Amino acid sequence: MPDGTDKPASSPKRSFAAPTGTRDLYPLELARRRWIEDKWRKSAVRHGFEEVDGPTFEHTELYTAKSGDGIVGEIFSTFSGKDEAAVKAMGDALARGEKGAAPYALRPEFTPTLARMFAARGGQFSKPCKWSWQGPCYRAERPQRGRLREFLQWNCDLIGDGSAAADVEVMAVCVGLLESVGLKPADLRLRFNSRRVLGSLVREMGVDAEHESTAFVLLDRRDKLDDDALEAMAFEFGTSDFGFLQFLKRPRGRTGADEALNAMPLDARAKANSLLEPITAVSRELQNAGIAEWCDLDFNVARGLAYYTGTVFELHEASGAMRAVAGGGRYDNLIETFGGPPTPAVGFGMGDVVLSLVLQDKGLMPSDKQIAADLGLRPDVFVISNGQPESDALVGAYLADLRRKGMHARRSYKTTKNVGKLLQDAASCNARYAVIIESATDVTLKDMDANTQDKGPASELLARILPPPR
Amino acid sequence: MPDGTDKPASSPKRSFAAPTGTRDLYPLELARRRWIEDKWRKSAVRHGFEEVDGPTFEHTELYTAKSGDGIVGEIFSTFSGKDEAAVKAMGDALARGEKGAAPYALRPEFTPTLARMFAARGGQFSKPCKWSWQGPCYRAERPQRGRLREFLQWNCDLIGDGSAAADVEVMAVCVGLLESVGLKPADLRLRFNSRRVLGSLVREMGVDAEHESTAFVLLDRRDKLDDDALEAMAFEFGTSDFGFLQFLKRPRGRTGADEALNAMPLDARAKANSLLEPITAVSRELQNAGIAEWCDLDFNVARGLAYYTGTVFELHEASGAMRAVAGGGRYDNLIETFGGPPTPAVGFGMGDVVLSLVLQDKGLMPSDKQIAADLGLRPDVFVISNGQPESDALVGAYLADLRRKGMHARRSYKTTKNVGKLLQDAASCNARYAVIIESATDVTLKDMDANTQDKGPASELLARILPPPR
Repeated sequence: MPDGTDKPASSPKRSFAAPTGTRDLYPLELARRRWIEDKWRKSAVRHGFEEVDGPTFEHTELYTAKSGDGIVGEIFSTFSGKDEAAVKAMGDALARGEKGAAPYALRPEFTPTLARMFAARGGQFSKPCKWSWQGPCYRAERPQRGRLREFLQWNCDLIGDGSAAADVEVMAVCVGLLESVGLKPADLRLRFNSRRVLGSLVREMGVDAEHESTAFVLLDRRDKLDDDALEAMAFEFGTSDFGFLQFLKRPRGRTGADEALNAMPLDARAKANSLLEPITAVSRELQNAGIAEWCDLDFNVARGLAYYTGTVFELHEASGAMRAVAGGGRYDNLIETFGGPPTPAVGFGMGDVVLSLVLQDKGLMPSDKQIAADLGLRPDVFVISNGQPESDALVGAYLADLRRKGMHARRSYKTTKNVGKLLQDAASCNARYAVIIESATDVTLKDMDANTQDKGPASELLARILPPPR
Repeated sequence: MPDGTDKPASSPKRSFAAPTGTRDLYPLELARRRWIEDKWRKSAVRHGFEEVDGPTFEHTELYTAKSGDGIVGEIFSTFSGKDEAAVKAMGDALARGEKGAAPYALRPEFTPTLARMFAARGGQFSKPCKWSWQGPCYRAERPQRGRLREFLQWNCDLIGDGSAAADVEVMAVCVGLLESVGLKPADLRLRFNSRRVLGSLVREMGVDAEHESTAFVLLDRRDKLDDDALEAMAFEFGTSDFGFLQFLKRPRGRTGADEALNAMPLDARAKANSLLEPITAVSRELQNAGIAEWCDLDFNVARGLAYYTGTVFELHEASGAMRAVAGGGRYDNLIETFGGPPTPAVGFGMGDVVLSLVLQDKGLMPSDKQIAADLGLRPDVFVISNGQPESDALVGAYLADLRRKGMHARRSYKTTKNVGKLLQDAASCNARYAVIIESATDVTLKDMDANTQDKGPASELLARILPPPR
């Protein structure tokens, strides 16, 4: 359990609790998480994405290269204690206040790993590569509702296709997941934008190319800051043009694309039509893919990561209540940065924490019994002795035999010989059948769902419930 | 890809390669790993173990408390850069050569997390708890065949039962996994021993209780050291009794239990029978569970971890060629160490790396096509346009509709309109069916396995291949 505090490294007493912002998942909680992982994986498979995986930790430079300050400031650093001289040298550097002195970092996101992997071996695959990934990520954020330091993320990326259709194919697998868990367009909105369009717009407003990335950072943070803070940051970064400041300070919250366009201080609004072409292309493909009803153009979406180049999108509750459920976009330069050929790519990441909260809030998380059934965790058979020593001695052999034949078989660990109480045990773990050993050859087979039973030779009765041999 | 060297932390140039000893898994490799994970999970489920999970990193003390020097020397340390004062203090401590100065450690194994979790909330569950876990572990070992710095591990633990039957129930799920992947008792041997028995034996040989744990460390390392080195270490640790030294220096390699007993310089060999009772009890239960043919009593097995208290076991290739495929044992004091009630517990861990090598060596790893089928990754349907603009425009809608109905649907990304070439694409991804859009209403449905096809209304033909609605 999170202990709610960030203990300094020199603290003499550390507890045996889980580290702040991490989770202990006991069987029911783990099954709920596995249910989400299963939905993720099946959505990716249905849409033709193939799963890949990479290391939990990477060389620190993989993140300092391109992810942007927001992520780099929240990295968990990692080092091996094997090489004592290297550890001492790193200790000196840390004591001097050098950041990034540790050789490795726990992955805060998967995209840099994916880009590195594609740069290394992407040439061997036919294009586009459609890759999915799911696993834990780590950020040293202050834990709060919907935000942990270790969380699961699901990524889908389409590499080697720079078209709006590719953007939408990635959005479609995201929407496919939402549909598969029972969410509706009234629950969640996929808000999209284009950094290329946004770049053109802010240049129209007087921001020069040099300050474009700073302008994106400001746009990304504007919901979290008030006008004075935004203006101060804009001056500090040197993007103090009046037109852009007006755009930055326009009313917060959701506004339609038309309203946003009208609010723009463009000298030649007539230019907007051609500026908007990348967005128009995405809108057309959203119609083709049949997912337009989930999506809104939203000029508020800029994304915090430094590597995005084109279409960007975020998935939010329609109420706007919480942080993003998912976010992604096009990153056409990242693979080249890691030594690969120039390669267009687009993808998104979705975390388990916010998604789980949304599903709970909407009453869409299935019951634990349903989850066990969905995941194939329901016991097939519960083996009981009728209480005779001869039967007691056979319980182990029955279990071993049934398991060998592919059945999920359980028994009671209670010392009671009362068959009624043992059947209660079978019922409480929701076993499909109970087998009561009656003699060396005979059993009672009880169908726990139908509440019917038959007594007879084990070989005959068990044949009814065994799975077909492979 | 491992770069084969351990770069010092202060190295000015770091590469964009994966860190030494970690893996990049592209789709085929990932599917092979998922196949093993699936076998692990299904074996655990069949035997009634329920999956749990905990944090990837823990407070460093969780491992320094009880795991023993072997593991602690190989820990990857972790810290957050957020609290600058704490980082500087840690840097000072590291520069002074203080080990364990970092607040967190990547888990080198899961047992301490499991014991901590049980200590925190085990009281809420009926006993015994049968918990399984699978996930990555991290050790800063020198990478070599069968040994990586990041590897997957599968654990099964039975908590709250101190009997020999519980020991064997844990061994049985391990053997169940081996059977499910087609391994035979002639391929792998489960070698077991008892630390309690071994402790009694070494005390009979003149080692006092204070040096018992040192004696276990020496026994665990004896296969890796020559007689002189063993003798030097034994003197250094103060366990220099002649009888024990003789036992330590007895011939290496596999010897039967009888030979080992005969080689023991026991003053009163007659005592052996009662000393051996814990082992006799395990042998009896191995017979009951029907797995005795996999198992050998082996006094060479001591296990390196400091927390084991009773039965210990290792799974080795029958040829003795490689490091252990799995290892485990009873750890009756660990949960109490982490603040829980005194609780007997037994469990094992199996890594994916050595298991994969064994399966490959024995030719038991299925073909990639079979793995895709086993994991439900085979495409259900491949959608093709007949080349007419009207049909081209419908490909996206067909894909969206089929996916919404639960099908794994793909299309070609080639620009060709040649239906024959597009059908080759369908064949090369092993799609079960191909759907060729012929008009606004009609399709050709081609059964790729049977090499038959029908043409007609889409609504009618697709109904044949759609999964039943849920």
